[in-house]
Amino acid sequence: MKNSIKNVLLAAALMFCVCGTVSAAETAGSTLAALSDVQKYERAIHIMAMLLVGFGFLMVFVKKYGRSALTATYLLVSVSIPLYFLKESFGGIGSSGGVIDNMILAEFAAASLLICAGAVLGRLKMGQYMLLGILFVPFYALNEWIVLNGGLGLISGKVVDTGGSIVIHAFGAIFGLGVAASMTTLTEYEAPIECDDTSDRYSLLGSMVLWVFWPSFCAALVAPADVPRTAVNVILALCGSTIATYFASVRLRGKIAAADIANATLAGGVAIGSTCDLAVPGVAFAIGILAGVVSTFGFAIIQSRLTNLTRKVDTCGVLYLHGLPGLLGGIAALFVVSGINFGAQLTGILITIMLAAGSGLISGKVISALGRRVEPYLDDEEFDGDACAPEEDQPLIAATEPV
Amino acid sequence: MKNSIKNVLLAAALMFCVCGTVSAAETAGSTLAALSDVQKYERAIHIMAMLLVGFGFLMVFVKKYGRSALTATYLLVSVSIPLYFLKESFGGIGSSGGVIDNMILAEFAAASLLICAGAVLGRLKMGQYMLLGILFVPFYALNEWIVLNGGLGLISGKVVDTGGSIVIHAFGAIFGLGVAASMTTLTEYEAPIECDDTSDRYSLLGSMVLWVFWPSFCAALVAPADVPRTAVNVILALCGSTIATYFASVRLRGKIAAADIANATLAGGVAIGSTCDLAVPGVAFAIGILAGVVSTFGFAIIQSRLTNLTRKVDTCGVLYLHGLPGLLGGIAALFVVSGINFGAQLTGILITIMLAAGSGLISGKVISALGRRVEPYLDDEEFDGDACAPEEDQPLIAATEPV
Amino acid sequence: MKNSIKNVLLAAALMFCVCGTVSAAETAGSTLAALSDVQKYERAIHIMAMLLVGFGFLMVFVKKYGRSALTATYLLVSVSIPLYFLKESFGGIGSSGGVIDNMILAEFAAASLLICAGAVLGRLKMGQYMLLGILFVPFYALNEWIVLNGGLGLISGKVVDTGGSIVIHAFGAIFGLGVAASMTTLTEYEAPIECDDTSDRYSLLGSMVLWVFWPSFCAALVAPADVPRTAVNVILALCGSTIATYFASVRLRGKIAAADIANATLAGGVAIGSTCDLAVPGVAFAIGILAGVVSTFGFAIIQSRLTNLTRKVDTCGVLYLHGLPGLLGGIAALFVVSGINFGAQLTGILITIMLAAGSGLISGKVISALGRRVEPYLDDEEFDGDACAPEEDQPLIAATEPV
Repeated sequence: MKNSIKNVLLAAALMFCVCGTVSAAETAGSTLAALSDVQKYERAIHIMAMLLVGFGFLMVFVKKYGRSALTATYLLVSVSIPLYFLKESFGGIGSSGGVIDNMILAEFAAASLLICAGAVLGRLKMGQYMLLGILFVPFYALNEWIVLNGGLGLISGKVVDTGGSIVIHAFGAIFGLGVAASMTTLTEYEAPIECDDTSDRYSLLGSMVLWVFWPSFCAALVAPADVPRTAVNVILALCGSTIATYFASVRLRGKIAAADIANATLAGGVAIGSTCDLAVPGVAFAIGILAGVVSTFGFAIIQSRLTNLTRKVDTCGVLYLHGLPGLLGGIAALFVVSGINFGAQLTGILITIMLAAGSGLISGKVISALGRRVEPYLDDEEFDGDACAPEEDQPLIAATEPV
Repeated sequence: MKNSIKNVLLAAALMFCVCGTVSAAETAGSTLAALSDVQKYERAIHIMAMLLVGFGFLMVFVKKYGRSALTATYLLVSVSIPLYFLKESFGGIGSSGGVIDNMILAEFAAASLLICAGAVLGRLKMGQYMLLGILFVPFYALNEWIVLNGGLGLISGKVVDTGGSIVIHAFGAIFGLGVAASMTTLTEYEAPIECDDTSDRYSLLGSMVLWVFWPSFCAALVAPADVPRTAVNVILALCGSTIATYFASVRLRGKIAAADIANATLAGGVAIGSTCDLAVPGVAFAIGILAGVVSTFGFAIIQSRLTNLTRKVDTCGVLYLHGLPGLLGGIAALFVVSGINFGAQLTGILITIMLAAGSGLISGKVISALGRRVEPYLDDEEFDGDACAPEEDQPLIAATEPV
Repeated sequence: MKNSIKNVLLAAALMFCVCGTVSAAETAGSTLAALSDVQKYERAIHIMAMLLVGFGFLMVFVKKYGRSALTATYLLVSVSIPLYFLKESFGGIGSSGGVIDNMILAEFAAASLLICAGAVLGRLKMGQYMLLGILFVPFYALNEWIVLNGGLGLISGKVVDTGGSIVIHAFGAIFGLGVAASMTTLTEYEAPIECDDTSDRYSLLGSMVLWVFWPSFCAALVAPADVPRTAVNVILALCGSTIATYFASVRLRGKIAAADIANATLAGGVAIGSTCDLAVPGVAFAIGILAGVVSTFGFAIIQSRLTNLTRKVDTCGVLYLHGLPGLLGGIAALFVVSGINFGAQLTGILITIMLAAGSGLISGKVISALGRRVEPYLDDEEFDGDACAPEEDQPLIAATEPV
């Protein structure tokens, strides 16, 4: 009898122990999930810094276009993020994880849109950038759904593209080229896009902000245990492209071009995207070097020839920073990732190229139809230059800081 | 007997199990708490970026006042944070959580002080900014204690103000207007505050840094599980005010003013503060739009009329970026939050307005008594222009960019 | 018999309970470790922002040297980080924790190298900076191994230097002085290093970015539970040096020098490094004040005299921002940390000074042997000024750096 009582007590204690453990584990589990989500949030903030400060200031190099470039950046981000969110809230295609995952996916869409806008920078009015955003996001989401989530059943297998070399960078760049092809007038082609020399350092600021936070872009949605390795790969790829850009710029141009340093240094980050969580450090470094060379070659050699050949202008050279290195990254995965599905990967790349080009051309036509311009855009067309400088008609200030 | 032995062994094993579980749970619990505190620390760093780089560069638009604005920002932050800490270390009123909570509360005080300083920017010497900080912090802490912590028993109920629309933004702005009202001389009023055109892009840099890190400001002290939702609300509110600012600026001025883009875009962040963790995304977006319209209307229409009417100058227009949107946010909570205590919320707003205005007026008198100026401040009054540029006697460059 | 069955069931349940608990604890433990590593990753990103944006823009003050300074920063970081990594991957000396620990240690090496490069800024070609990096990293790693990890058995005891006052700041500064001493020609000495007036605000941007993220630098490798306390100490030390710099600059120069504000404000961060996780807040604030005074005194009084005396140029004044405050921090530990090993601490400081000076002198000779220059470096020596501005043949200052 005493035994029975003891056993009952023991059982009770055991129940308490088990229940307590389970409930404590549940609490701990949900706390761990919450902490992990907050870490994703941190990376989401890093990406936001890339979108506004990074892309924004990288584009502040066109003469008399500083305020416009930054305002356009603000508007493109503010249009695309709620729009992508709206899609998710209708339980839309591609919807997946928690609210912070959706925010990061929306930021990816905004990044791709900013890349696209770089191709036509300096040739749209503010309202047209917003229209571009409204046209871009559905096509971007469609491609993302087809390539990454098996939409329409076009791709049977996994496409490797963790950091978006294909669906973010290449898609945005090619879409932008499509828009530029539909829009560029001969007058625009003949009016060279002049750099604002005072803006070199602003561009380098934007470039550095992108460089610094790039690991968070690539690792945004990877599991906590994979974040450090992914970050190291991205940083090594960026180091590789930075060193390669210096040597390639000197070799191909004779002198260093600040524009190469501001842009092609980032090509390693673009190209490592697809395999950022799968490559080993040495390979990541090598991919970065290759991407830096390809990108610098694009800026130094291809850009002027292609512009003359096609008579179309790619203002920021997005083909050379995002297009070619993005495709390079997607193809590199074929050699780097063991057990990769060749067919799926190649189909994914091909669909992205075709869908981006097609929808870009269409979008360019739509924007042109609603107000095509022949003269290049200047800040004072839309911006109020007199608001805060009453005596601005003195020559020199106007000369040095046109905007 | 064997049973007894078995039972003893079982009991021992059970004890071990229970104790082990408890101690493991304790360890895990304290580790979780530590990780959660480190995440607060991350947000504290984001806020620091807003204070120095954000507020600092947003204020770099007054002609010949770049170095002063940045130095003043440095000094205001460095005076207010240790001062608020000192209060906490005396077990002062309002003292609450761990050391990182106190740091974030100190940063909130510094943010409110920087807002306040924006109203009198360009009219104080460096030492006077420090005096302003010393006068401001006790009044700020008093209002925080009364409104949020039930100090003096004036408010019976909870005031909803997670991100500080009322106690940080509105308080700082109204305090600053009080100081400006006590200090502005007729000479100052008649000397227009000239923008430095080269500084547009610096202002936009400051603006973007504030935009990017604003979610961390609002979510600084919320529980981990609520951070993602809060962040999404803040980002959507900022997107709303950014789009609204563009349309309102074009509508009200005919052209876009870069100053509107740099400032009113942030009004959504100010206004969503009170309800950032409680609103649903759609409402957050709507509050942002409304705040953008109100703020742009303030800058475009009210500012010049009020300045002429009162003959008092609000240099940065803090009334229109922080004052009105802050009050809007506090009032919006009445409609957005179910079960809100109307009386407490309205009393909190009213006390904040009165305490800020009164203490601002007094502080302005004190600062004036210790050295009122009649001429506007120029950088070279206090800054050493010759330290590093021996051949600086060329007229215009020296004039616009003295250093 | 029934008892036996009960006991068996109880035992089984208990086993299940224990095993379940253990495996859940194991999972939770590895997740906790992963989350903790991601938090280190966050701090690694903050440090990267300091390296590129912080150090990079802080150095943008030499006339006609903006693009070079930023490009050099890019190259120095991109050479030193993979190089330090390579060492680790050979299971090299000093190898310790996970991949993210190694990345942070590599960033520390890059920071020390950037400090070193500040001493000879404006006098190396891009390729020479890369050579400097290749020479620097092995010596840096050797000193780190001897002083912190007991290498060669030279130091018997623990050297207190969590945030690297000694092994990062003092080592980098003294190494740089050694290089400068080997390299500076009389022509260079006689050609004053001219500030670029438009760059004040860029320098202050770099300064503020360093200030903001400094807590993450010092707390990069401390345990989660110690991060908040460490961060508070660093912030208070920076507040102390900022206030002290203002008063010292006014007192010693009569007027405020923007260069003091951009540099000496950071001395508190340098000096608190050694004791950042051990000091109490009041002491941290005091160390900051002292460091600000010492650093400002260095810039205002010592710099010009020492330059005349030695006829050697320390371009950025790294002796006064990193050298003296770093040594101050290492020595302060003797008075602040209870139970510190006096002999080890002093020996560590002494070895660092000697090793840095010696290896710096040697490295300077090597670089000189491979191409010593007599004329100061200008951007257009290596940079392509015409790449993007067709009409750039207007007078040089207007063209390259108008503002």
